[in-house]
Amino acid sequence: MAGKRYLMAPGPTPVPPEVLAAGAQPVLHHRGPDFRAVMLRTLGRLQEVCRTENDVLLFTASGSAAFESAVVNLMSPGERVLAVMAGEFGERWAALARAYGADVHELRYAWGETPRADDVRARLEETGAKVAFVVHSETSTGVVSDVQALAQAAREAGALVVVDAVSSLGAVRLETDAWGLDVVVAGSQKALMTPPGLSVVTVSDSAWGRSQSAALPRFYFDWDRMRASLETGSTPFTPAVTIVAALDVALGLLLEEGLDAAFARHAALGRACREGAKAMGLGLFSPDEERSAIVTAILTPEGIDAREVVLALRDRFGITVAGGHGELGPKLFRIGHIGYYDVFDITTVLAAVEVLLVEGGADIERGVAIARALEAYHETARV
Amino acid sequence: MAGKRYLMAPGPTPVPPEVLAAGAQPVLHHRGPDFRAVMLRTLGRLQEVCRTENDVLLFTASGSAAFESAVVNLMSPGERVLAVMAGEFGERWAALARAYGADVHELRYAWGETPRADDVRARLEETGAKVAFVVHSETSTGVVSDVQALAQAAREAGALVVVDAVSSLGAVRLETDAWGLDVVVAGSQKALMTPPGLSVVTVSDSAWGRSQSAALPRFYFDWDRMRASLETGSTPFTPAVTIVAALDVALGLLLEEGLDAAFARHAALGRACREGAKAMGLGLFSPDEERSAIVTAILTPEGIDAREVVLALRDRFGITVAGGHGELGPKLFRIGHIGYYDVFDITTVLAAVEVLLVEGGADIERGVAIARALEAYHETARV
Repeated sequence: MAGKRYLMAPGPTPVPPEVLAAGAQPVLHHRGPDFRAVMLRTLGRLQEVCRTENDVLLFTASGSAAFESAVVNLMSPGERVLAVMAGEFGERWAALARAYGADVHELRYAWGETPRADDVRARLEETGAKVAFVVHSETSTGVVSDVQALAQAAREAGALVVVDAVSSLGAVRLETDAWGLDVVVAGSQKALMTPPGLSVVTVSDSAWGRSQSAALPRFYFDWDRMRASLETGSTPFTPAVTIVAALDVALGLLLEEGLDAAFARHAALGRACREGAKAMGLGLFSPDEERSAIVTAILTPEGIDAREVVLALRDRFGITVAGGHGELGPKLFRIGHIGYYDVFDITTVLAAVEVLLVEGGADIERGVAIARALEAYHETARV
Repeated sequence: MAGKRYLMAPGPTPVPPEVLAAGAQPVLHHRGPDFRAVMLRTLGRLQEVCRTENDVLLFTASGSAAFESAVVNLMSPGERVLAVMAGEFGERWAALARAYGADVHELRYAWGETPRADDVRARLEETGAKVAFVVHSETSTGVVSDVQALAQAAREAGALVVVDAVSSLGAVRLETDAWGLDVVVAGSQKALMTPPGLSVVTVSDSAWGRSQSAALPRFYFDWDRMRASLETGSTPFTPAVTIVAALDVALGLLLEEGLDAAFARHAALGRACREGAKAMGLGLFSPDEERSAIVTAILTPEGIDAREVVLALRDRFGITVAGGHGELGPKLFRIGHIGYYDVFDITTVLAAVEVLLVEGGADIERGVAIARALEAYHETARV
């Protein structure tokens, strides 16, 4: 065993070698012209990836922190917010807003359900909340919501919409401007193919307007302090300069592939993973639909504990997948396929799963999963 | 001109090649055993470097953010705090606490002065503040304060002491436990020889106690959420795993050199820089004393604008030094010498300064600065 590692979790994700190499270049001073050029190019590329003319702010912090910046820059104590919740991350944003004293109203679904625009509209009208939190890709369940429809419902109900696109940006279609998304939050370590440490926030004019009267206290996460960096490339606090240099290169790769091609690749990867799992006779927890292109949640057969599959994949084969949260732990495991992946990553993990399940007594015809995954990938990618 | 770069600013600082290489290894999953081992070793090494048995928390964010974590975990709205201010960073912490609604009392000195313990004691008794902010190394002026004495005065006046050691940790003596420092804040990108992106907070039992009733809102910076990572190595939010891997290696290098040896090296670098500048006939803004081992602030001769020296060093020689803040801009420039530096870095920057000043009409005997810097370094390093 050479100790080779396969990172198949829904983040952090594998980073292309040229991106790792860019991050290993000597440190640039964050106020000098060399770094300024990198930072301004990175912000411009992020606008392209977010498909927006809105301002893009880059924080040295995780995706959760970027979401926190949205809360503290948009809200005042006691203000109402609607949190759309159908999994771990929906719940996290509600807890975050509560920690800041917001009056959080929930639109709660069972984990694994897909939020519906009509429900969002109705709950906003009922509560009068002027801000709505929605999750684009709920990494805990594999559900990718129809953010376009959810955002339209929010806008019609007079609310600003804050979108958690941490695991979706760059993997599935997200049109910040065309869909009227006021705030989009993302992280460097998912489909953007960069090490963790940076997070992204896009801010619409309406969101900037609201931030001027938002009274929650803030300093490091204050959008106004960050605003100057849009012109000068110089952030108020020392940024993670090496990760910015890495992100710059990764965004270049993504834009070179082309966003539409990247979205098609992710859709094909998701379909390959689902078709392969089904060919093994396994049930899916995540929806069997095209949007479900981020993470595939697979149910283990009766009598096989998914937690043991996760550990055996890791300890015997060096493959990291994610387990299920809480009660879902024994029932499912999750394969992430966002960013620097191709179909042979899918066949690798399915092959390893097949070995373990057969050993565990499952009645699986050897090889069909791989064959079906490859077939499904090429059918989908061809479209 | 090969475009070779010399980073001589007081942060970020140059990173040793083996540290850059460690940060370019494939991304580890932040909840797996490979990363857990790295994280726990890093936290242990940070305890050694901080000379503490206190808990060490590692945030993915800048040093300012780590200071923010101290404010929001120790304070409630309207509570009194004493901010000791003698430069840019002292002022930053006062502004930060004010942004969170603290009742900030100032102990203000002219920039370049060294805070005095008797003043701290008197102002704490006068105000009744139960928390004091002190700056160990005021990077804007080059002053390194006697934190041991300041902390003792604070303790005698019944206040917790929060120490900004962002640019001092690993470069000058800092004894968290022996000096009774409740909270020490540092960053990865200074004497810890690592790219920016991580920051460190040590938390004493008294500080943990106070945090339990501190009512300021917090989520990403909440110490309690971070606490579990001390046992498990698993942080609540995705950390900058590649920078943690880099920091681990950098701390190993620092501990291999030995902290006392590193402190002696920095003292010698500081003295070499001062003696070289004086040999050129230049005046010092930073104190001419042993503790002043982080950054040397040098006054340009009458008639030579320091801002032009800073730009010429950068544009003609690829050397980044720092300018003076605000009104000090035309008068001084600052050479940082913390972390991965030896005496030839000092002679390089002094040689370049000599060229520029002679061109600018200064009456400088060529070569004496370099000779004197080398002599002073070896005199000091020998002691």
